[in-house]
Amino acid sequence: MLRMAEEIKIVEQESIQVKSPNVVIGLPDVGLVGLIATMHMIETLKMKLVGYIESRLFPPVIVLHNGEIQSPIKIYAKDKNIAIVSEIPIPSNAIYELTDALIKHIKDWKPAQVILLHGIPVPNRLNLEEVKTYAIGTDDETKKIISDNKIEHMDTGVIVGLKAIFLWESIKQDIPTIALGAESFLEYPDPGAAASVVEALNKFLHLDLDVEALLNRAEELRVRMRDLMRRTQESMRGTQPVRELELPPMFG
Amino acid sequence: MLRMAEEIKIVEQESIQVKSPNVVIGLPDVGLVGLIATMHMIETLKMKLVGYIESRLFPPVIVLHNGEIQSPIKIYAKDKNIAIVSEIPIPSNAIYELTDALIKHIKDWKPAQVILLHGIPVPNRLNLEEVKTYAIGTDDETKKIISDNKIEHMDTGVIVGLKAIFLWESIKQDIPTIALGAESFLEYPDPGAAASVVEALNKFLHLDLDVEALLNRAEELRVRMRDLMRRTQESMRGTQPVRELELPPMFG
Amino acid sequence: MLRMAEEIKIVEQESIQVKSPNVVIGLPDVGLVGLIATMHMIETLKMKLVGYIESRLFPPVIVLHNGEIQSPIKIYAKDKNIAIVSEIPIPSNAIYELTDALIKHIKDWKPAQVILLHGIPVPNRLNLEEVKTYAIGTDDETKKIISDNKIEHMDTGVIVGLKAIFLWESIKQDIPTIALGAESFLEYPDPGAAASVVEALNKFLHLDLDVEALLNRAEELRVRMRDLMRRTQESMRGTQPVRELELPPMFG
Amino acid sequence: MLRMAEEIKIVEQESIQVKSPNVVIGLPDVGLVGLIATMHMIETLKMKLVGYIESRLFPPVIVLHNGEIQSPIKIYAKDKNIAIVSEIPIPSNAIYELTDALIKHIKDWKPAQVILLHGIPVPNRLNLEEVKTYAIGTDDETKKIISDNKIEHMDTGVIVGLKAIFLWESIKQDIPTIALGAESFLEYPDPGAAASVVEALNKFLHLDLDVEALLNRAEELRVRMRDLMRRTQESMRGTQPVRELELPPMFG
Amino acid sequence: MLRMAEEIKIVEQESIQVKSPNVVIGLPDVGLVGLIATMHMIETLKMKLVGYIESRLFPPVIVLHNGEIQSPIKIYAKDKNIAIVSEIPIPSNAIYELTDALIKHIKDWKPAQVILLHGIPVPNRLNLEEVKTYAIGTDDETKKIISDNKIEHMDTGVIVGLKAIFLWESIKQDIPTIALGAESFLEYPDPGAAASVVEALNKFLHLDLDVEALLNRAEELRVRMRDLMRRTQESMRGTQPVRELELPPMFG
Repeated sequence: MLRMAEEIKIVEQESIQVKSPNVVIGLPDVGLVGLIATMHMIETLKMKLVGYIESRLFPPVIVLHNGEIQSPIKIYAKDKNIAIVSEIPIPSNAIYELTDALIKHIKDWKPAQVILLHGIPVPNRLNLEEVKTYAIGTDDETKKIISDNKIEHMDTGVIVGLKAIFLWESIKQDIPTIALGAESFLEYPDPGAAASVVEALNKFLHLDLDVEALLNRAEELRVRMRDLMRRTQESMRGTQPVRELELPPMFG
Repeated sequence: MLRMAEEIKIVEQESIQVKSPNVVIGLPDVGLVGLIATMHMIETLKMKLVGYIESRLFPPVIVLHNGEIQSPIKIYAKDKNIAIVSEIPIPSNAIYELTDALIKHIKDWKPAQVILLHGIPVPNRLNLEEVKTYAIGTDDETKKIISDNKIEHMDTGVIVGLKAIFLWESIKQDIPTIALGAESFLEYPDPGAAASVVEALNKFLHLDLDVEALLNRAEELRVRMRDLMRRTQESMRGTQPVRELELPPMFG
Repeated sequence: MLRMAEEIKIVEQESIQVKSPNVVIGLPDVGLVGLIATMHMIETLKMKLVGYIESRLFPPVIVLHNGEIQSPIKIYAKDKNIAIVSEIPIPSNAIYELTDALIKHIKDWKPAQVILLHGIPVPNRLNLEEVKTYAIGTDDETKKIISDNKIEHMDTGVIVGLKAIFLWESIKQDIPTIALGAESFLEYPDPGAAASVVEALNKFLHLDLDVEALLNRAEELRVRMRDLMRRTQESMRGTQPVRELELPPMFG
Repeated sequence: MLRMAEEIKIVEQESIQVKSPNVVIGLPDVGLVGLIATMHMIETLKMKLVGYIESRLFPPVIVLHNGEIQSPIKIYAKDKNIAIVSEIPIPSNAIYELTDALIKHIKDWKPAQVILLHGIPVPNRLNLEEVKTYAIGTDDETKKIISDNKIEHMDTGVIVGLKAIFLWESIKQDIPTIALGAESFLEYPDPGAAASVVEALNKFLHLDLDVEALLNRAEELRVRMRDLMRRTQESMRGTQPVRELELPPMFG
Repeated sequence: MLRMAEEIKIVEQESIQVKSPNVVIGLPDVGLVGLIATMHMIETLKMKLVGYIESRLFPPVIVLHNGEIQSPIKIYAKDKNIAIVSEIPIPSNAIYELTDALIKHIKDWKPAQVILLHGIPVPNRLNLEEVKTYAIGTDDETKKIISDNKIEHMDTGVIVGLKAIFLWESIKQDIPTIALGAESFLEYPDPGAAASVVEALNKFLHLDLDVEALLNRAEELRVRMRDLMRRTQESMRGTQPVRELELPPMFG
């Protein structure tokens, strides 16, 4: 059923006035690379929470940071940089709608570039001394930026999920977008991969985000992320659709 | 399909006239903490059943108390306190609708504060001598109340389900809401956690609910709750959606 | 999608003219108690088949009795008694609609009382020498009848499925309804429990249904019921919704 | 969603002009009895393909016979006989729609009788020297035909699926229908059961279909049917609904 | 819900002006034969990417080739030949819609012939020295072409999925279509089968596609295909429909 409730709302609590900003997007997919890397950027730069995204297409989740109640999908800004980060996986039935909403909203910002951070699943991750970083550009301009920064272009491959549609729409709607990914574990939070992504991000945005710091926090992050996700998952239990309503395991 | 039948009805059999009441809400999620604690409050204060909530979004369940047929989601009141308690888990497809209905209705009561009681799943619950209690406030006023009562603020974490959306909407609609939770088992009824919640609740509402009594009844409660849920679950069997209609196990 | 086809039709092949009849309803839920007991009443009193209920919300099933093709949900009548019995479990997505249709139709009969026969699942059924019978009344009148007949009132418990909603609506719409249940196996046809229900029913309706006969036929009934259900279940196989169409196991 | 696309189309490539024809219907349910028996009739009588049934409610399947592309649900005719046969199981969500379409269409033919061929699952099939045949008639006329042909009337039982609804509607819409079934394996193609059905069919339609031939081909048929179904099933793989899209096992 | 978004768009980036072209279609079904063979044709002939197909009925996937972002379903052209190839399996709920869109679009090209390349699952593939090739024609013209090229006509069998509906609609809408298949593994990419298909395709289109080359690349292709599909599958994980949202295994 199509309901108002199912719309996606992007709210700027403080209207964003930056001219041609850099927009970084991090979602918790493969290895949680995008989430970890973007979080690190936000924390290191002490970016300011300026907005959030909400929709009833998302699971009923809120998060707490420093005692503040927040949407799990937030917008941060500082100087010329804007970061959009999600702490919950995007449900497949919201991917197209959320992409449309993001594209429409970001377009109004007239971004210098949009950078999607993500992980590239590789089976042999465990054996990799160092992980490779690859970038995808949606137009000549972004491709030149990638080359100038000596990041390897992703030549062949498959991109799936929101970032796939985002890249596709970027081309169609003339948004200069770069997908920046590093080889990563599929099923484990991968701060190492995130570090490589941050390293590349530093070049693109002329930043100096401390990669060492991220690596030193790797173990802590791994635990924190696992925990974040475990809590979410655990808390999700017991809210089944009514047609298949079943009571929590305890009552079995 | 959107049908009248899918609306949520909140019925006050006796219209509630209390001025700026305290509203306590307890749902059967993690550890059934919210349900157990709210039930204890209702029974100890001998609160009066004044209303109920019904919807065809809920499973077809009624409960019997003292031979009275009741909705599993009820409203009790006494003096300045109102309690809303559910004996059935809220199906995920009813979470948003029920939250909206609750917020809308409670708003008309102009509550002094709304307190959501819940359990916070911790993996190591078994090893905890005593469980910690944490509170979340939706505005400065509620945060001050929490501090004044020396309850620890929840600093970081994930809140999921109806209470998450309720907190979120409370902020947006200016309802002074507190989520009060205690560390709990995820999958077992946890009267111990409920006791800690009640202890904190006593402070917030200047009550003197007997925590000892609750702890002494722990075993009995654990059994009663298991039983309540087991019966529900058992009775649920054999009512499958037609497309996947299957006969009860017996006929296998 | 709301389609005419999804309506529930209650058809009286012979219009029922009894004044303030007693209406007995038996559905095949816990232990098939309601089904077995109502069937026994119908057969013993040689009640007359006067109508049926059909809906495309029900699975595509018909039954044969004495070579006659019948709907699995039928209406029988004799003297002041009407019996409604279903040989198929009611799919959960039809529960609310069927209850509404039943209430609406039965109301026009201006019933003296409606009696829902059912089983109450108890884990220790195997060890019970004799099973207890409990009744629930929806108003003072029915409660008095229960007391007068020395049937124990069900004090606390959970009622689920169609009978739950039926009881609930009975209160709201002023229908004098009694739910009459006996402790029963959850997963096995329980003629013993049905016998206890019949014993109580005799009191309520001043009947003399032979309980011994029912008990003597217990084994035969158990087999017949299992068989009825097994055939249904077997025949159901191979009719999957197209989106998950799979061929019968044989072709695996 | 209701779409034209979801309608069921019954197409007569050669308009059928037979006066009061006998209509035989065979679907691949229990033991594939209906399918095997009807196929045997069609092949033995060299009936002519005169039409087909198509719908987007059916799985995307076509079949090849003698190099001809055909719908899996076809209509054959010869002399006074019309045969409707399906090589694919009817998805449950198409049962009611297809029955309506069939009834409506067949009615216009003003059939002398409609005969539904099917299998009756029996657990002990393996031990049966010879399988019993049972018939169900929808009116006195068909019941007399059954008796005159000395076929046993099915006295009690459960009929499920399209044939159940077809019988039901036949009564309501005055179509003289006979359901003719033989005891059968549930999960294995059962040419033996089909043979018994054909034997009875010979009486009803005064035909002389060679039962021996069918029995001699039993093994070949068993293989052919298995194969038919296995191919269908295998080919079905890899076409999952998008929301649960998964790649073929190979990629696991 | 019917939404514009759910339409299927076939986009010609360079309008195709060829007169009565040969249209080759390869989808990744059984053994990925259609995909491998069509890819080989495209690469060998250095066909030009001239268009693509997109729809929100497809999973959110894009592919990269030579650093170019592409839809997984593309249209290539060269001289008199057009090739349509998909790198993702077509979700079952898009089969009918995509077939309609393809037929409508291809019709405007007034094709000389449409050739669907596919694999025919055979259980004993492993033991086959060489695999047989079979063709299906939708009209006399295509059947003659098949005979003239000494390809065996498929006599009996079951065709499932998009190609089945495509063949069916070709007959109804007078499109000269040939389905060209070779015996293949069901669950493993089968370059050997693809080679046989290419061999036959050479005859139909008077091409000289190097079959040896394809066989020599067999192992490489097998790996590449596995990899392509594995990546897609892996990347798909974590995008569950919200109602059954669950976090990636890692958080279990």
